[in-house]
Amino acid sequence: MATERYSVGLDYGTNSVRAIIVEVSTGREIATAVYDYQRGDQGVITDDSNPHIARQHPADYVEGLRACTTAALEQARAEPGFAPERVIGIGVDTTGSTPLPVDRDGVPLAFHAEFQENLNALAWLWKDHSAIAEAEQITAMAARHRPHYLAKSGGTYSSEWFFSKIWHCLNVDPRVFAAAHSWVELCDYVPALLTGATRPEQIKRSVCAAGHKAMYSSEWGGLPDAEFLAMLDPKLAGLRPRLYEQAFSSECRAGVLCAKWAQSLGLPEGIPVAVGAIDAHYGAVGSGVAPGTLVKIIGTSACDITVAPQGAEALDIPGVCGIVHGSVLPGYYGIEAGQSAVGDIFNWFVREICEGGASLHEKLAAEASSLRPGQSGLLALDWNNGNRSVLVDARLTGLLVGQTLATTRAEIYRALIEATAFGALTIQNRLAEYGVPIERVVACGGIAEKSPLLMQIYADITGRTMEISRATQACALGAALFGAVVAGPEAGGYATAEQAQAAMTGTKERIYRPDPERHAVYQELYALYRRLHDSFGVAGTQECLADVMKKLLELKSRA
Amino acid sequence: MATERYSVGLDYGTNSVRAIIVEVSTGREIATAVYDYQRGDQGVITDDSNPHIARQHPADYVEGLRACTTAALEQARAEPGFAPERVIGIGVDTTGSTPLPVDRDGVPLAFHAEFQENLNALAWLWKDHSAIAEAEQITAMAARHRPHYLAKSGGTYSSEWFFSKIWHCLNVDPRVFAAAHSWVELCDYVPALLTGATRPEQIKRSVCAAGHKAMYSSEWGGLPDAEFLAMLDPKLAGLRPRLYEQAFSSECRAGVLCAKWAQSLGLPEGIPVAVGAIDAHYGAVGSGVAPGTLVKIIGTSACDITVAPQGAEALDIPGVCGIVHGSVLPGYYGIEAGQSAVGDIFNWFVREICEGGASLHEKLAAEASSLRPGQSGLLALDWNNGNRSVLVDARLTGLLVGQTLATTRAEIYRALIEATAFGALTIQNRLAEYGVPIERVVACGGIAEKSPLLMQIYADITGRTMEISRATQACALGAALFGAVVAGPEAGGYATAEQAQAAMTGTKERIYRPDPERHAVYQELYALYRRLHDSFGVAGTQECLADVMKKLLELKSRA
Repeated sequence: MATERYSVGLDYGTNSVRAIIVEVSTGREIATAVYDYQRGDQGVITDDSNPHIARQHPADYVEGLRACTTAALEQARAEPGFAPERVIGIGVDTTGSTPLPVDRDGVPLAFHAEFQENLNALAWLWKDHSAIAEAEQITAMAARHRPHYLAKSGGTYSSEWFFSKIWHCLNVDPRVFAAAHSWVELCDYVPALLTGATRPEQIKRSVCAAGHKAMYSSEWGGLPDAEFLAMLDPKLAGLRPRLYEQAFSSECRAGVLCAKWAQSLGLPEGIPVAVGAIDAHYGAVGSGVAPGTLVKIIGTSACDITVAPQGAEALDIPGVCGIVHGSVLPGYYGIEAGQSAVGDIFNWFVREICEGGASLHEKLAAEASSLRPGQSGLLALDWNNGNRSVLVDARLTGLLVGQTLATTRAEIYRALIEATAFGALTIQNRLAEYGVPIERVVACGGIAEKSPLLMQIYADITGRTMEISRATQACALGAALFGAVVAGPEAGGYATAEQAQAAMTGTKERIYRPDPERHAVYQELYALYRRLHDSFGVAGTQECLADVMKKLLELKSRA
Repeated sequence: MATERYSVGLDYGTNSVRAIIVEVSTGREIATAVYDYQRGDQGVITDDSNPHIARQHPADYVEGLRACTTAALEQARAEPGFAPERVIGIGVDTTGSTPLPVDRDGVPLAFHAEFQENLNALAWLWKDHSAIAEAEQITAMAARHRPHYLAKSGGTYSSEWFFSKIWHCLNVDPRVFAAAHSWVELCDYVPALLTGATRPEQIKRSVCAAGHKAMYSSEWGGLPDAEFLAMLDPKLAGLRPRLYEQAFSSECRAGVLCAKWAQSLGLPEGIPVAVGAIDAHYGAVGSGVAPGTLVKIIGTSACDITVAPQGAEALDIPGVCGIVHGSVLPGYYGIEAGQSAVGDIFNWFVREICEGGASLHEKLAAEASSLRPGQSGLLALDWNNGNRSVLVDARLTGLLVGQTLATTRAEIYRALIEATAFGALTIQNRLAEYGVPIERVVACGGIAEKSPLLMQIYADITGRTMEISRATQACALGAALFGAVVAGPEAGGYATAEQAQAAMTGTKERIYRPDPERHAVYQELYALYRRLHDSFGVAGTQECLADVMKKLLELKSRA
């Protein structure tokens, strides 16, 4: 205990920022503090005239940084042996793509009096969808002229991403665009702040954000080339030199804690700060992601992350959102896929349709637990919020088939869970087809903890064991883990992320194993799911579906 | 008033029997009385060991006949000018196919001490589905050897019908089968009782029940031939001579009121009783069915009835349940189609899924009224209870597509109504394709009265005016109407059913007319409905459905 060292993980979410302090030798969390953003609606600034707009004020980031870190440190003092001097590193993860326009001193334009009332000068939160038209144009232009740019991002460039947002700003507010010396992802802004990297050129950019959100790849020498950007708008090409040449993995230091912030936070000056990353990626690291292990962060939506050894050839997996070298673990391709809605679908059904609350979730889950696979006679497509992987199509919607006059709420509830599990399996199958086999799944997120029903259904449907990450705050743990990695063994940290993972991460005791009989029935249901999936989701598919309802009735009568 | 004559209509429903007394000159109802069956669950006797069983005790029929008729007469005494002596005729309609085994004196076996505890000796209520296997065998056998038998009944012989039930009785309870001298439809049993036709051979059977439920047609000389019945079971062929040779339309008298029942009811002995019919058919007559006019009885399910002039050739309309000459109006083909569930689907959604009651129906209808066609982005198939017309397939189920995370209860409620309207249109189109064009629809049933939303949607979707029958009890009015027809003009009645309809039936003032703009949008939605209908309902259909969700989103954004 006397030699124990600590690391700080900062996790910037949509509504709040959290600081945790962990024991470097075990990953055990000794303190955690949350700061709720003060501006907008729980930190999200919207515009009544445009429902797509979702922004954040960087003042929330700065105030939150100080508040939650000092609160966590205060809490940590209760831990025997803890002292701020024993903190050896800091890691930061944030939502993304959440870019901010900054001036030539790295100061967000939102802090300029001139722009203080201007929504476009704020941070463009990940879920801002105002740039749909620009995203479509980028996708179309890249498909024609730079198809390899899209190959890493599932074939579509999203309205949520870096260049869509910047271009939209140029289109709707050229004054903000012109005033912006550069644009910085939130996961790069916070480490820059902590390390005193006042000039944008000094900021070490995250390869995770760069690769997954900004079409950056070392394969083609960095960001999209100027000629391509000029096809979109010459002013975007003009911005390119003021963005960045190179991006870095999180085993690299963004810098060391500057005197000003060391004093403000009460942490030792000069401790290293890791290059940042997007939250889900750190969540995967904090949950033990490794080759063959998929980490699935299940919340309102789901994010699937795994890693694959870097082979001789570049890895392209159609329909998978992002494949970026070094974005998750150094030396591996980081692979990200996702489901646009998981918990959101269950919440929609319970809140909107059944007009119930948390207790109804419990009641329906209890009733659904007693149903056998196939017994409901129902089958659903989990596309109520579109399909992120592997169809990458926001203009898809939900489907429920098989309902009779006796169909119950609990049967629908279970069918919706099953639908998301079929969606999960579709992603896993796609990965396997392209040489990235998945052996086990480690889930994290509230639903994984709260719903044994969901976990068992996922195991039974995917045929893979489902485990739950030990970390209660997996993203923040991943951040703290990289804090320990950039500190290095000489300071009591680790030489590699894998070594840090071996010590600091793990899974809970309860493991959900697939039941062979249930899996066999679900294989039959999955064959039907795939036929609906392709019929409704894949242009050109011609299918006869006249046996679908009858097969469901047959499975129902067998169940 | 001094010369006004009256007619009695008796309407045997699933849970009760109703007697009405109407003014012959206007059809105005001057008295109505209902008797609730006393046995089983609201008259329906079930068996815990077999959910398909639904029977009724004929004692309920007999007791109910006396109770409701005398109660109605008592009520009618308040009418100035009324006297029982002024009643000129009686008509009877009942559920069907509801056959009863009877002895050689026409007494139901259920009244024999020997069978008093035996469910198989009771009346086999229309919704008894215990004969599913027999129905499938009859269908298969007829398809192979007597395809013309099926052509009149939509291609499938139902488990609800006469021979399925009788054969099932033979298979499961040969003792009851052997004891039955004959089997009598309920709509024939009640007139037989009233007219004292004690021997089965004396009973004038209804062509409506015979043609729609027992494969009777004058085209092939009556009931299915003995050779065919022997292929099913020789004992069925043995029963055939003890059934009937000829069946009759309702402008024929079953006989005249016998002394015993005249005394018991307090009605004049010797007034004529019309040959009975199945309830929906009388409902159509009581609502003014005519060539070009479809009567749609909308309740938990829907029954569509129209008539077509008898042409040179026999009329076959694929997927239409029944085409029987004279079954509705003498001199016309009676054509019956149906939707297996209408109100049942809305009730299922409100009760089972929303856990609401009548007030929630009102609330959702009010909210749904403000939605424009296409605005929900939803499309449903109305097959939660299978499809009666035009697919004639019980093994079909419901489907809902287009739901997002913002989909509301009211949107689903409206989509379900729209789905039943698309189902209604599909039937109307099929009739038109086979030379039976429909110009207007007269709806009757509680939903038609209670839901202006449904009526307007039906008008907008079908492109036809929707009117509502003036009759509050259309089936009973149809029965009373035929009472006046069999009385004839000499007794103050009518010479023909059409003359009686002209005087006694009509529609309410409010007419729902299609709105051309809404109809145009619904035409686009109907094209999508038809593609789902055929893809999921018609074997061999190969369709690309990948544009369906996108078209729904497009209609949504246009709405």
